[in-house]
Amino acid sequence: MSNPLPEIRRLLEGAKRVLIVSHVSPDGDTVGSALGLAWALRAEGKEVRLACADPIPLELAFLPGAHEFSTRRAGDEEIIFCLDASDPARLGALYDAEAFQRAPVVNLDHHITNTLYGDIHWVLPLASTAEIVLEVIRGVGLSLDRAVATCLLTGIVTDTRGFRTPNTTAETLRHACDLMEAGAPLAEITEAVFDHRALRTLRLWGAVLSSMEWEEGLLWAELPLALLEAYGATSEASKGLVNFMSTCAEAEITVLLREMEGGQGVDVGLRARPGYDVSAVALAFGGGGHPQAAGCQLRGSLQEAKERLLPALKALIAQKA
Amino acid sequence: MSNPLPEIRRLLEGAKRVLIVSHVSPDGDTVGSALGLAWALRAEGKEVRLACADPIPLELAFLPGAHEFSTRRAGDEEIIFCLDASDPARLGALYDAEAFQRAPVVNLDHHITNTLYGDIHWVLPLASTAEIVLEVIRGVGLSLDRAVATCLLTGIVTDTRGFRTPNTTAETLRHACDLMEAGAPLAEITEAVFDHRALRTLRLWGAVLSSMEWEEGLLWAELPLALLEAYGATSEASKGLVNFMSTCAEAEITVLLREMEGGQGVDVGLRARPGYDVSAVALAFGGGGHPQAAGCQLRGSLQEAKERLLPALKALIAQKA
Repeated sequence: MSNPLPEIRRLLEGAKRVLIVSHVSPDGDTVGSALGLAWALRAEGKEVRLACADPIPLELAFLPGAHEFSTRRAGDEEIIFCLDASDPARLGALYDAEAFQRAPVVNLDHHITNTLYGDIHWVLPLASTAEIVLEVIRGVGLSLDRAVATCLLTGIVTDTRGFRTPNTTAETLRHACDLMEAGAPLAEITEAVFDHRALRTLRLWGAVLSSMEWEEGLLWAELPLALLEAYGATSEASKGLVNFMSTCAEAEITVLLREMEGGQGVDVGLRARPGYDVSAVALAFGGGGHPQAAGCQLRGSLQEAKERLLPALKALIAQKA
Repeated sequence: MSNPLPEIRRLLEGAKRVLIVSHVSPDGDTVGSALGLAWALRAEGKEVRLACADPIPLELAFLPGAHEFSTRRAGDEEIIFCLDASDPARLGALYDAEAFQRAPVVNLDHHITNTLYGDIHWVLPLASTAEIVLEVIRGVGLSLDRAVATCLLTGIVTDTRGFRTPNTTAETLRHACDLMEAGAPLAEITEAVFDHRALRTLRLWGAVLSSMEWEEGLLWAELPLALLEAYGATSEASKGLVNFMSTCAEAEITVLLREMEGGQGVDVGLRARPGYDVSAVALAFGGGGHPQAAGCQLRGSLQEAKERLLPALKALIAQKA
């Protein structure tokens, strides 16, 4: 696709009011990208409004402007930026076909599955959308100050799990280096987004980890509601737990089965070493995801979920062995 | 201190046999630095021998040459490099005053507490010794191939806990970027050094995490020998545990008290949020370290160690509050 920077520059020259929209279930990349772009545009005198259909997670509250996101739909803005959202449905209730016809929509994203919606789209297979925003800021000639750099580096750090995902390249590190030189405090960002687990969360993780079961490459654990309650924790506390379990050297495939509230069934998180595709299993049970990280939700009890799921996963391992 | 590169270059020109020594309780930085330098020198036709008083940890076995380290003391080598060792005592039984008089000793280190021993010393406050070796390789004009880059990037990654320590700078990221461009596989390194915990280690961590205690900012846990034995684990399994505990949001200071084998007393790991200096406490108990990460060993039982140590740490927190 051709480089859309000249067109973005032209659109911005004629516009005063800008709307930036982040995707539902916001993460550090969609929020950091939105805030980074917002501060860069404000330094040019633009009026920027931030929107997201869901609340911003607590661990991102340290970002300048994190409290500004609203759920208000597009109004009289002259440009709409959609960040890190691979299709309009990812904007949730904030997608407004009419408003999106009225103003030019700029779609910036790093997901190769992006549907290329919008009047201008720039989809690059980088490790984060924040890096595409960095390209826009540089290409358009906006200023890269400490606030902008902090927000963008947060996008890189969260989407690469601290430079640990396989798509972290030399280019990713160079972008991160540039942002640190512009004043972004890497250690503070890392501490804010990774090093803050509640005491009750850590104790709950302990209980789950010590009860893990393993058979021929398959590692699994259950998280019954009663255990959550015993530690005064909510389902939020299980975030990251299956990733951590999957660091087990003996695990080819890792499963966390979490009992959902209100008898809604069981939420299943799946992780696999390279060479497996757990998204196919997740899909067969009505879920989805990536080959190495997928999930699904099953009706019924933890016991029933195990009986349905574990044999399928064991078969996957046996097939490869 | 003056740049010693010309002298290192001159020494290497006249030498054929090189000894590289890593420090006791070897970590990824001392091992990665040694191997990186070894492969760079071998590409120049040097005969390089690697030595370390202690065994190389399993998670570093993936590094090319990791199996080559021996405990044999200096022989007829014409240069001795000591890497990441702040004083000769850190070389353990491999320190040999006589041999170290016979051949020129080059001391490369990033610890500012380095005693500046050796005929040539180059101590820079970088995030890792691997980066100083990178400077030497570039300065002397040695080749930076994939094997060298892989070993050096492992040094950076392990000493910064994957770019998460506060001393990770833009320069650190630039060095890491350069090493990736030279072929170092960051994702493989990260997976090897961080994402491989034995099942019994993870279960043991679970037991310790679920038993953590907390009082007014102080988080602590005990690791009795009996617990290690119950999980079929060795003291090696506790590596990294106090770091993980210290991600607790409510913890100002974190302590892990590990009962040592053979009635040798208690090994204490200390971690603190910025603003504290736990190395002063560790020093008062005969240990040492950095303000945010320190350690010491106490005689007596776990109970006695707690009684001596915890009040001192609580006082530190109360003092700051």
